[in-house]
Amino acid sequence: MSLDDVLSRIDADLPAATDRLIELLKIPSISTDPAFKEHCDAAADWLVADLQGLGIDAQKRPTPGHPMVVGHIDGPGPHLLFYGHYDVQPVDPLELWDRDPFDPEIQDTPNGKVIRARGASDDKGQLMTFVEACRAWKEVHGTLPCKLTFFFEGEEESGSPSLVPFMEENRDELKSDIALICDTGLFESKVTAITTMLRGLLGEDFTITGPDRDLHSGMYGGIGMNPIRVLTKILAGLHDDTGAITLPGFYDGVTELSDEMRAQWQGLNFDHQTFLGDVGLTAPAGEQDRTPLEQIWSRPTCDVNGIWGGYTGDGFKTVLPSQASAKVSFRLVGQQDPDAIRDAFRHYLESNLPDGFSVEYRTEKGSAASQMSVEDPAFEKARQALSDEWGIPAAYVGCGGSIPIAGFFKDIVDTDAMLIGFGKDDDQIHSPNEKYDMESFHKGIRSWARVLAALS
Amino acid sequence: MSLDDVLSRIDADLPAATDRLIELLKIPSISTDPAFKEHCDAAADWLVADLQGLGIDAQKRPTPGHPMVVGHIDGPGPHLLFYGHYDVQPVDPLELWDRDPFDPEIQDTPNGKVIRARGASDDKGQLMTFVEACRAWKEVHGTLPCKLTFFFEGEEESGSPSLVPFMEENRDELKSDIALICDTGLFESKVTAITTMLRGLLGEDFTITGPDRDLHSGMYGGIGMNPIRVLTKILAGLHDDTGAITLPGFYDGVTELSDEMRAQWQGLNFDHQTFLGDVGLTAPAGEQDRTPLEQIWSRPTCDVNGIWGGYTGDGFKTVLPSQASAKVSFRLVGQQDPDAIRDAFRHYLESNLPDGFSVEYRTEKGSAASQMSVEDPAFEKARQALSDEWGIPAAYVGCGGSIPIAGFFKDIVDTDAMLIGFGKDDDQIHSPNEKYDMESFHKGIRSWARVLAALS
Repeated sequence: MSLDDVLSRIDADLPAATDRLIELLKIPSISTDPAFKEHCDAAADWLVADLQGLGIDAQKRPTPGHPMVVGHIDGPGPHLLFYGHYDVQPVDPLELWDRDPFDPEIQDTPNGKVIRARGASDDKGQLMTFVEACRAWKEVHGTLPCKLTFFFEGEEESGSPSLVPFMEENRDELKSDIALICDTGLFESKVTAITTMLRGLLGEDFTITGPDRDLHSGMYGGIGMNPIRVLTKILAGLHDDTGAITLPGFYDGVTELSDEMRAQWQGLNFDHQTFLGDVGLTAPAGEQDRTPLEQIWSRPTCDVNGIWGGYTGDGFKTVLPSQASAKVSFRLVGQQDPDAIRDAFRHYLESNLPDGFSVEYRTEKGSAASQMSVEDPAFEKARQALSDEWGIPAAYVGCGGSIPIAGFFKDIVDTDAMLIGFGKDDDQIHSPNEKYDMESFHKGIRSWARVLAALS
Repeated sequence: MSLDDVLSRIDADLPAATDRLIELLKIPSISTDPAFKEHCDAAADWLVADLQGLGIDAQKRPTPGHPMVVGHIDGPGPHLLFYGHYDVQPVDPLELWDRDPFDPEIQDTPNGKVIRARGASDDKGQLMTFVEACRAWKEVHGTLPCKLTFFFEGEEESGSPSLVPFMEENRDELKSDIALICDTGLFESKVTAITTMLRGLLGEDFTITGPDRDLHSGMYGGIGMNPIRVLTKILAGLHDDTGAITLPGFYDGVTELSDEMRAQWQGLNFDHQTFLGDVGLTAPAGEQDRTPLEQIWSRPTCDVNGIWGGYTGDGFKTVLPSQASAKVSFRLVGQQDPDAIRDAFRHYLESNLPDGFSVEYRTEKGSAASQMSVEDPAFEKARQALSDEWGIPAAYVGCGGSIPIAGFFKDIVDTDAMLIGFGKDDDQIHSPNEKYDMESFHKGIRSWARVLAALS
């Protein structure tokens, strides 16, 4: 059977694949530091050459920043796009590294072999899992299983300033049936996961003004309404005693988990006590009738990310301040409408302002949640492929934060993203001594071969 | 009758008294600026000489800062102490003054004659009202009406660093039957007032810690309890919907106004709408069943004077912070016990912390309220004397803030203070173009003569 041949080829080629990854890792493509601009360029060149070696029509495409690498190859069946990024984080503090971050080494550790270098996990190692799967396929079959587009970015670690304009200018070229993204990890370092829910984000940054100047609490304390008192009352009223958010209509558009998804998540046996305990917390703070995983993946939130007002220096000043400010953000899920929630928040806030008080908003743009269409059979096929490789049922998971690239594919290119990655929690991405498990690399390549087979 | 002779003498001597005040005002005794140290000394010398001219045993008394002036003269009847301060505020911004702040001038204004100079009202003019009353008495009677101590400070405008140590070291010398203090004003610039209630102050400066590091709200939002949410809930719970403070036992020791005091305050026809409107506020924010004057004079308060936590810079950071902090203060009245209220606050705060949260306090010293013993007939005699002079019933009033010197007399020297002053709201103390109304000066001198007669 052809997949087995590809998997065998992958196994046999692992030393060479590792050598290729080491070559790529040696290029210090730190995107945020202009001193490394040529190295970013070199990494892009390396990838273009590597893709061309597979018969892919690959080119370096200029942007105002670091170049994109885009490659196409025609084929039968669906059109799949693969996204990764070839730039890496800076390496400081360098003295905390055990070796040169750009001199990769295979090391034995109690948990198995790892390849240690900056970018090993984020994202060069992950990116190469897909390229190596394609290489093995090509070598076994002489061709690739379907129409493919490769899309590599060189600015992911520095805010992706060129990404949206590039995607907008090349919308038609990048449109595909599904966008595969390899920049995430295994759930709890064990279970392969396809991220199918990404929460949206709405921010409100505002200042409440009461008296037109700072007052002395000796003269005005008691009779004068204190904006901090008003603000704390408003903010405290955003959650009820069960942890639910009280804004009228807030839960409109929040979808319930399907029974199947719920069962999958239960099967993950998420250890929320360790998750919280690792950062000094104990009990889950979200809606009491929701599981911990729902609280971070599929339920909307409201958090005050910043608050300030009055005197905050050393000692005491009995001031009754003129103003008090806060930054409040909402993580959104399902079909929640950022505009409607902004309206509801402002209505709630303003209806709780005393006479004569005013509020000024510094508006932040909101983004709705992304929810992938798991009814698309491709998702179930990919999940089965991952389960087959890892011997544990793979899971559809949520992601509490936003992964902008997934939203860009949806919003700009009208393509659903399928986020699959093999990173582990201890990969130390963005930190000294970054590594990628050889197991992640090897099984990652095999996983993509299986996914390609399943989707083609 | 002897008082009439004194009052006539005061009237006749007003031009000379004004000249003497002008002499004192010419000395730039700015206590906070070391460049004016010699001038502070000169002002103290001037006062020593002036008191000695009245036969008073006066001396300049050294401190680590500017000297005190203390003078004694024996006599019949009660022992009265008079306190004032000879130092003045800095004069900057100098360009906003219409003339040299230390070149006093009598000016005609639509509201009558004023003497304009730094310190005219705060406190040289007020201080001299008492000295001139004594001078007239001495000149008419050849002696003073009672045993008197004069106590002038030169650091009131720079935090009085030497005051408490000096009072502690000279406790016996300063102990008297009553301490007269002339550093306050007429109620709404019209009604002479004896301040008989000063609110105390208790501050709590604290930080709540939840997670042991700042968290990303994408990863932890929902499940992770946010210290700002905890803090706002705690602070919002300090007031109920009627404006009352909710801490158990908080109102223990709060005394109700006597019927007489309530009637007096009603008679003041306090215009709270203007009081609030002047600073951009509308409705009184204190307990709804209390009058505006009660809210600022005789009722305790709770205010958040400062709050901070999370990200407060430009833009947005979706941080779930490790900590949130606030400075909370309570104005205390009657017999409220600062220690008991601190305990109640801390108990309330700590019982509202989620499991695993902690709080750290940066303790501030608390001070109880001062309530003068108006049952002491001296108060009623003084009030009658003031009413006689001004032709309007004088009032016992409260003061929302603390006047430390009053508390020091009570706590250190075990002497009740009687605060009487003739400043007006538009005297522009601490601001450019400070002035003192000649009416305040003239009637102030006459008022003290009447008070001396009444108390002797």
